Amino acid sequence: MSVVDIHTHMYPPSYISLLQSRYDGAGSAVPYIRTFEDAPDDPRLIILPDEDAKGGRGRPVGPEYWSVEQKIAFMDTHNIETSVVSLANPWLDFLSGFESPTWAAKINDDFEAICASHSPRLFFFGVLPLSGPPLTIIAEIKRLQTLKYARGVVIGTTGLGRGLDDPEMGKIWEALEETNTFVFLHPHYGLPSSVYGSRASEYGHVLPLALGFPMETTIAVARMWISCVWDRYPGLQILLAHAGGAIPSLAGRLQSCLEHDGHLRGNGKEEGPKRTIQEVLKQNIYLDAVVYGEVGISAAVGLVGKDRVMFGTDHPFFPPLGADEKEWLSVRTNYDAIQEAFTDEQDQDAKGVLGGNAIKVLRLQVD
Amino acid sequence: MSVVDIHTHMYPPSYISLLQSRYDGAGSAVPYIRTFEDAPDDPRLIILPDEDAKGGRGRPVGPEYWSVEQKIAFMDTHNIETSVVSLANPWLDFLSGFESPTWAAKINDDFEAICASHSPRLFFFGVLPLSGPPLTIIAEIKRLQTLKYARGVVIGTTGLGRGLDDPEMGKIWEALEETNTFVFLHPHYGLPSSVYGSRASEYGHVLPLALGFPMETTIAVARMWISCVWDRYPGLQILLAHAGGAIPSLAGRLQSCLEHDGHLRGNGKEEGPKRTIQEVLKQNIYLDAVVYGEVGISAAVGLVGKDRVMFGTDHPFFPPLGADEKEWLSVRTNYDAIQEAFTDEQDQDAKGVLGGNAIKVLRLQVD
Repeated sequence: MSVVDIHTHMYPPSYISLLQSRYDGAGSAVPYIRTFEDAPDDPRLIILPDEDAKGGRGRPVGPEYWSVEQKIAFMDTHNIETSVVSLANPWLDFLSGFESPTWAAKINDDFEAICASHSPRLFFFGVLPLSGPPLTIIAEIKRLQTLKYARGVVIGTTGLGRGLDDPEMGKIWEALEETNTFVFLHPHYGLPSSVYGSRASEYGHVLPLALGFPMETTIAVARMWISCVWDRYPGLQILLAHAGGAIPSLAGRLQSCLEHDGHLRGNGKEEGPKRTIQEVLKQNIYLDAVVYGEVGISAAVGLVGKDRVMFGTDHPFFPPLGADEKEWLSVRTNYDAIQEAFTDEQDQDAKGVLGGNAIKVLRLQVD
Repeated sequence: MSVVDIHTHMYPPSYISLLQSRYDGAGSAVPYIRTFEDAPDDPRLIILPDEDAKGGRGRPVGPEYWSVEQKIAFMDTHNIETSVVSLANPWLDFLSGFESPTWAAKINDDFEAICASHSPRLFFFGVLPLSGPPLTIIAEIKRLQTLKYARGVVIGTTGLGRGLDDPEMGKIWEALEETNTFVFLHPHYGLPSSVYGSRASEYGHVLPLALGFPMETTIAVARMWISCVWDRYPGLQILLAHAGGAIPSLAGRLQSCLEHDGHLRGNGKEEGPKRTIQEVLKQNIYLDAVVYGEVGISAAVGLVGKDRVMFGTDHPFFPPLGADEKEWLSVRTNYDAIQEAFTDEQDQDAKGVLGGNAIKVLRLQVD
């Protein structure tokens, strides 16, 4: 049985250099990589604006982020045959429009070379220069079609800067739909920190990571739906990170709130999306299985169908806290959740989630 | 079979008067009830700060909010035998600490009289003067024990003003636990409006109501859990509105993020809650069934167990948009969801959700 990991990140060496070049002492804009005086050999990645505050040092960033050998070793340890790697957040959102097209092409070429070096075990979702001129974005979408190992693109929730319901995104969605480009939507910005209250710093990064990240994805996809993106681009297919966050819980309420909103409906009005969110979920959305629990997996499958859920690991994030643990708890938890979510009779469905769905949808041609 | 509605709101006449008295022209602080010049007989309830902007007029507020006859008629139409009514958001959060104890007592006495007038079909969750001195809050918790139809309290997510993880809440949790007072936690504040982007006003109230409300509840309960409220008050039992929002989707991720957080765990550290969120959910949390979909109901049942999910309607909110519709679509959607979530063999479980669980847990003594 082939296991495919569709949610696994890599920073090509060029991206690491870019992040290192951005640290310029206190007050540097995130993201960046820096070291501290008392640990000059321990580079740390600072992604969130408040991660470099007193006592906070972001996360260690070592070869697990850039080494293809470590990626393959991680895959072997966890019985993963194929990985579709993607640049992690925040991608190139932080670059100026002048810089981003060049970097996107360079990083995508790096990914292509990395995948070719370990064919057929690696494929990738490319990165787009979303801060660049729309023509450069569309050109990169088309160029990705020519790269043998590219299987789609990874994007965040801000789009061109104003979110995924921005009308200016139309020409990007159009290009993605026309080229049948698969889109992996991943969070980065979370929620405003005020929602976690004044004690948030006592809780490590638990609340922003566990709640803010997935809620950001849910809000983004709801904004796409209610602004009728899928009415205009019905072929657009999007994979949501972390099973879409809260969408399995809240899809029913979303639809009900639309149907009860006097501004959009009633008195013969039919404003808002033509298809229900449940229909769009079953026709245009894929969910990864990165939910760490049987209830979450079952809800994801119930919502989009067994053919539209795909295993992932989120590697190299959420490593074991104990240095001697070879198997990762985070991966084991997701494997166990899938096993618990399906009965013995549903073994084929479980295999679909573990790899078959991704092989088919992303044409992975695994032996 | 007895159907019990545990999520249904009423504004006693005294609360309506209070809201009317708060409108004092443009710039009045929400919540308030006002009329507009072109419709002097159409009082409108403004709850959210931006609801009274150009073109927005909040929602109509008529006898469905205060009339016990209309509540009973709604119950009869929808085959509801018993309702546990509660004051709707924002309760008394907006009052000064000087005013709130008096109003809480008056409103609770009003509820007691309303329930007595239609015994045994009505019970209520009382309101607490949370902006008042802690001694007055504790006194009202104890006084509610003496009211025949009181079955707990309804609270929002701000607690004494700083959230439910505020250490000052300890003495309130202690009083609630000691008196075995059942707590209904309901959202009001939603999320900062920036998360919905610049086009939010085009979408009516869909996004704040469908996403912000339930996400607020989820964040609140996560803050309670991670601040170890249930380690200190293991007897505290809380019912979450709207099935806890996103908690069925995100419980696994919450636990996983705690276990992978280097600030709280690892190197022998065991900071944070002693029990997993999944354990707390099964031992201390009830979820209402106000989720408008089978996937949401199944996830709720999977998370807390079939004995801890309870039917609700959210009446008088989400009325039909067509004036001639006697049966409410919002109620029908929730009934259908429960029917779909259980097989014929699980009929007893469905009956538990529809009423049996509430009768047992809240001691409703329905004939």
